Amino acid sequence: MTIEFTVFKGSKEGTIKEAKTQRDDLQRDDVLVRVTHSGVCGTDLHYQGADMALGHEGTGVVEDVGPDAHILKKGDRVGWGYEHDCCGHCRPCLTGWETMCRQRKMYGSADLDQGSFATHAVWREAFLFKIPENMSSLDAGPLMCGGSSMYMVSGRPSTLTRFTAVFNALHVAGVRPTARVGIVGVGGLGHLAIQFAARMGCQVIVFSGTNSKEEEAKKLGAAEFYATKGAKELKIKAPIDNLIVTTSSQPDWPLYLSNMSPNGVISPLSVDANDLKIPYMPLLVNGLRIQGGIVSSRQVHRDMLEFAAFHNIKPITMTFPMTLEGVQESVNTLKDGKMRYRGVLVA
Amino acid sequence: MTIEFTVFKGSKEGTIKEAKTQRDDLQRDDVLVRVTHSGVCGTDLHYQGADMALGHEGTGVVEDVGPDAHILKKGDRVGWGYEHDCCGHCRPCLTGWETMCRQRKMYGSADLDQGSFATHAVWREAFLFKIPENMSSLDAGPLMCGGSSMYMVSGRPSTLTRFTAVFNALHVAGVRPTARVGIVGVGGLGHLAIQFAARMGCQVIVFSGTNSKEEEAKKLGAAEFYATKGAKELKIKAPIDNLIVTTSSQPDWPLYLSNMSPNGVISPLSVDANDLKIPYMPLLVNGLRIQGGIVSSRQVHRDMLEFAAFHNIKPITMTFPMTLEGVQESVNTLKDGKMRYRGVLVA
Repeated sequence: MTIEFTVFKGSKEGTIKEAKTQRDDLQRDDVLVRVTHSGVCGTDLHYQGADMALGHEGTGVVEDVGPDAHILKKGDRVGWGYEHDCCGHCRPCLTGWETMCRQRKMYGSADLDQGSFATHAVWREAFLFKIPENMSSLDAGPLMCGGSSMYMVSGRPSTLTRFTAVFNALHVAGVRPTARVGIVGVGGLGHLAIQFAARMGCQVIVFSGTNSKEEEAKKLGAAEFYATKGAKELKIKAPIDNLIVTTSSQPDWPLYLSNMSPNGVISPLSVDANDLKIPYMPLLVNGLRIQGGIVSSRQVHRDMLEFAAFHNIKPITMTFPMTLEGVQESVNTLKDGKMRYRGVLVA
Repeated sequence: MTIEFTVFKGSKEGTIKEAKTQRDDLQRDDVLVRVTHSGVCGTDLHYQGADMALGHEGTGVVEDVGPDAHILKKGDRVGWGYEHDCCGHCRPCLTGWETMCRQRKMYGSADLDQGSFATHAVWREAFLFKIPENMSSLDAGPLMCGGSSMYMVSGRPSTLTRFTAVFNALHVAGVRPTARVGIVGVGGLGHLAIQFAARMGCQVIVFSGTNSKEEEAKKLGAAEFYATKGAKELKIKAPIDNLIVTTSSQPDWPLYLSNMSPNGVISPLSVDANDLKIPYMPLLVNGLRIQGGIVSSRQVHRDMLEFAAFHNIKPITMTFPMTLEGVQESVNTLKDGKMRYRGVLVA
């Protein structure tokens, strides 16, 4: 039996197109998911010019399972993110870092015939996440990537995609509840980072260009807020232990370096095709750590979902219908910088 | 009773001068040390133009102790390094990171009337290290700074001093015995780093400009050796988990970045007044960590001495007499790049 479903694809002309994808009957641990919601992410803009199915923040309902799928069953609510598969045998795979597997299959480079801008998708059971009971599928969508990890496109077409990893960044940096956590940027990532860090017990210090998002940031859990536009120096209450940079390009590093605690950790999530260029001796003298990161591994992703559900952490969303017009409108809203803060397509 | 002893100082003219230092009778936990050996370090060159006593890698014998000194006694062999004092009350001090204390007293900025190029010195008992029984005072001297930490001067007078921290770098980066550890540079630091990492059980991979130091590096414990001069690409057996950079300025970063394991840690110990400039996206995508560092804290320093004694790790030294002529000659040897690998003044 052949499975056929609708996907929304990019195209060389840069327009969104509706198309049909066909898949063989479910193999091994394949799971057929009926898509109910999909987050809209900057990466999708990036791939708008490619002949591939778009979307990588999917949530939906299991419709059928392959012969080796033993955990999920018809009717389960599930989601998926950036990674579709890995080898399962290499060191990263065996140590909980499968997103570093050299044979990983990721959005944008593998399985180009399906995505979450679609009516259905077929994925390995092993790479689907059960959505916690008290979390809506709408809220879960953006968390599939924005919460635990996300690719965002930068303004310039020449630059690479932007890897981000909000929850993962907090996880990898080993953020402690007693830490003062700085969040640079209040957007699709920043507004989740504030919530995560605040619920972890941290003092959250938010840096944004202007004061326009101060009220919202404080509602989300920020304890302090600083406007940075044009600032030559930032005078803050006390130094920062962890800095999560969620802006679309590298910030004015010296501004932040002088506010870091000894042994502080900087997690840059911005994309930039340029080199990292940061004052060197202050980094050494203060024992700072710059921690790169990518999309989270599956266990960290599960922990993120569980944490978000337990603490009722939700993305702030704008919804669009899962139609050709809806996809186009959502993509344009994001492109125009008008998304507050995360778009979701609803089937 | 006034204590008077001889020190060798820098001067505005850049020449070494012999002088007398006077100290009041021993206060609190003060300890009077008769200097028997002193390592000669690049930092001492840096301060040659300053009116201050030189030397910060001292070893010697306790001659007398103040009323509150309870651990050391006359005749004990001790050494000291870069740090002389700290506040004891701040967060870094209370968490084993006293080298990050804002009130720390360090060579070059405090206690300028005494150093290890001298007949005697008075230091707080709390900042003296007992030399393990099976370690000679000659070998211990350079370890007081080179082994666990070191400041080195860079070639250009405009640059800052060079902080290095060989054992500390391995410690802070959490190097595991199963790791492949890259050491860039075979000099005063590199030749110790090779020994430490090899005795920790690591596969040690050495990078040096030419092959001239290959034999020695392998004797010290290197498993692999690569000459880097003019290389556009380095093809090594397998990726590196930890990279310790001991060269006097920043290396050709892309050469090394492409050889790092996922989640690898880079510990730059070079001095450079310029910014750190390193490829950005590879850092993110591979989850790399850049870990700044400074001189080791006291417990790490003790661990280093114990480890070096247990494994018979020794610096390769050239000796000079602790006289005005000896100091001058040692400093010139270092300046001319002819020290193999660590100079020691012997009283």
